[in-house]
Amino acid sequence: MRMVDVATLERITRDIFAAWRASEDDAAWVATLLVRANLRGHDSHGVIRIPHYVRALKAGEVNPTPKIRVVSETPTLALIDGDRGFGQVVARRGIALAMDKARTQGLSAVTLKETNHVGRLADYAELAAAEGLIGMLWVNAPMALNVAPWGGAARRLGTNPHAVAIPGPDGSVAMSFDFATSVWAEGKLKVKFNKGEKVAPGIMLNGRGEPSTDPREYYAQPPGSLITAGEHKGYGLSLVIEILAGILSGTGPARPTPGPVRNGTLMMCLDPKRFLPLADFHAQVAELFAFVRSAPLAAGAREILIPGEPEERTLAERRANGVPLDDETWRQIRECATEVGVSA
Amino acid sequence: MRMVDVATLERITRDIFAAWRASEDDAAWVATLLVRANLRGHDSHGVIRIPHYVRALKAGEVNPTPKIRVVSETPTLALIDGDRGFGQVVARRGIALAMDKARTQGLSAVTLKETNHVGRLADYAELAAAEGLIGMLWVNAPMALNVAPWGGAARRLGTNPHAVAIPGPDGSVAMSFDFATSVWAEGKLKVKFNKGEKVAPGIMLNGRGEPSTDPREYYAQPPGSLITAGEHKGYGLSLVIEILAGILSGTGPARPTPGPVRNGTLMMCLDPKRFLPLADFHAQVAELFAFVRSAPLAAGAREILIPGEPEERTLAERRANGVPLDDETWRQIRECATEVGVSA
Repeated sequence: MRMVDVATLERITRDIFAAWRASEDDAAWVATLLVRANLRGHDSHGVIRIPHYVRALKAGEVNPTPKIRVVSETPTLALIDGDRGFGQVVARRGIALAMDKARTQGLSAVTLKETNHVGRLADYAELAAAEGLIGMLWVNAPMALNVAPWGGAARRLGTNPHAVAIPGPDGSVAMSFDFATSVWAEGKLKVKFNKGEKVAPGIMLNGRGEPSTDPREYYAQPPGSLITAGEHKGYGLSLVIEILAGILSGTGPARPTPGPVRNGTLMMCLDPKRFLPLADFHAQVAELFAFVRSAPLAAGAREILIPGEPEERTLAERRANGVPLDDETWRQIRECATEVGVSA
Repeated sequence: MRMVDVATLERITRDIFAAWRASEDDAAWVATLLVRANLRGHDSHGVIRIPHYVRALKAGEVNPTPKIRVVSETPTLALIDGDRGFGQVVARRGIALAMDKARTQGLSAVTLKETNHVGRLADYAELAAAEGLIGMLWVNAPMALNVAPWGGAARRLGTNPHAVAIPGPDGSVAMSFDFATSVWAEGKLKVKFNKGEKVAPGIMLNGRGEPSTDPREYYAQPPGSLITAGEHKGYGLSLVIEILAGILSGTGPARPTPGPVRNGTLMMCLDPKRFLPLADFHAQVAELFAFVRSAPLAAGAREILIPGEPEERTLAERRANGVPLDDETWRQIRECATEVGVSA
């Protein structure tokens, strides 16, 4: 493990993608968002992705200079074709458009297709919330399946996340919520696999459709699968996300044919001040949180958190101390840097 | 247990509410939706509610002749004040308005406040789906709390459900999904309590915040509480619903003061044909469902279901054989009928 400071990590990341022909602005944005995920403790969506993205660039699966196109548009809706661009770059365009439309119409929906991995969904919801809007996202990954339908024993769905961020006063984010519809995302299982550790029951099935606590069975043949969160509830929500994010965006739903990372995305923004005065909105959100926190603690619990708080704490800590990277991740990033003449 | 045929049950229900001064049309609509819930197997949202509604009418908590008012409106948004009307009556107005706006704008959001129990959410989502629109609802119940926040040991949230229905071809509903953000709704626990049975772990806490399998501890002093579905995930979604459905509607979020049933509601409709040709939409939904069903079965599972299928099966069975009612429920309904001179 080493600690890498934020500025260094952002510079290396930016320079690698700029070397791969992304514009300075796009490369800096991808770097900002990858490091932003690390700063918030979501390392699986952070700089660990650099080698994946470089492989995708080499394979021609990511276009570093996309011509992002609004395929159709109304005052409230827009459909975007990302021309196989970096997900972060396409989603930045999408959320900006969704925010513009919600400011004038109170409500908006924007879809993205032909876009690579969009990264941590909460980032885009938080961009909207920081500007006073409620941001909501739904995302599928139709060619990267790892979740079993409820009652099934094979991978038929992605981890299909949903994110919502709520604005606070003065450009703050009151709450930020981003969850996979599976109990665990695949990245957490991989960490346990790498360490040779078991997981708790209820997270995965083995390739025979039996409950398993051994991540090796997930990566075996036939492959295991992840279990949906809340049993049939996460399954139902995951199907909804296949339809809202996959089908409506033109990306398509989960399918048997593997392929490059494509994140079908639906984003919506809502302007709370169309519904009630902003001061009342903020006051009621604060009252809700205070009321929820006023509950006595359950057996074994240390505190009652508002979604987004753990990330805020990690952010404060890592801004001060840097981002911890394991040796293998750091080696891979340096390899990506060296390959294109970036010092790391 | 007795079987009561659908026409009889609808007539009795309608005549009771008409006797309580609801218009013939409104009384028939409330009857239709209560019986509709029974027909789909959701007895907790069916005619078992008649005595509750009658008590609310007597207490002046429900206004049988409400002046439902659109407080403000844009081409995509509407805020409705239900004047304390039956939830079913106010929500019918709301979903009709949301559907109209989505037809012209592609997307709409309508909120409801000052409305009594709206009943089974899926009904309204299905009304939209049967007309070719995606219907989405979020509902809170700020004065009927029964769910602990994640890490907490007391009731701070309602069961806050979310429903989504997806249109199929020719006025059919391809999928209908309606779930509480708690593992169980309170009604299921009450049934176990009445039978003197235990429940599985993970459903409830006792009044000391400890895991419990004994429903008697839920109804004791201090009261127990329900656990959120998917642990912190259901908790986060429940907070989102307090904000979207409670705060945006003007109903307000969960609060310590008990009061009459008020369901803060947000409904959205989306027109899929603004995103892709309808034939493609239907074909891709069908492909998704076929792919999901093609998974081998997990250990112990009998089939892979699409949300809404269990309800469709119960509907076919109960349409043919009638609605089963236990003696106590039937006695209470007859008492409500006799009281206002309705034959039952």
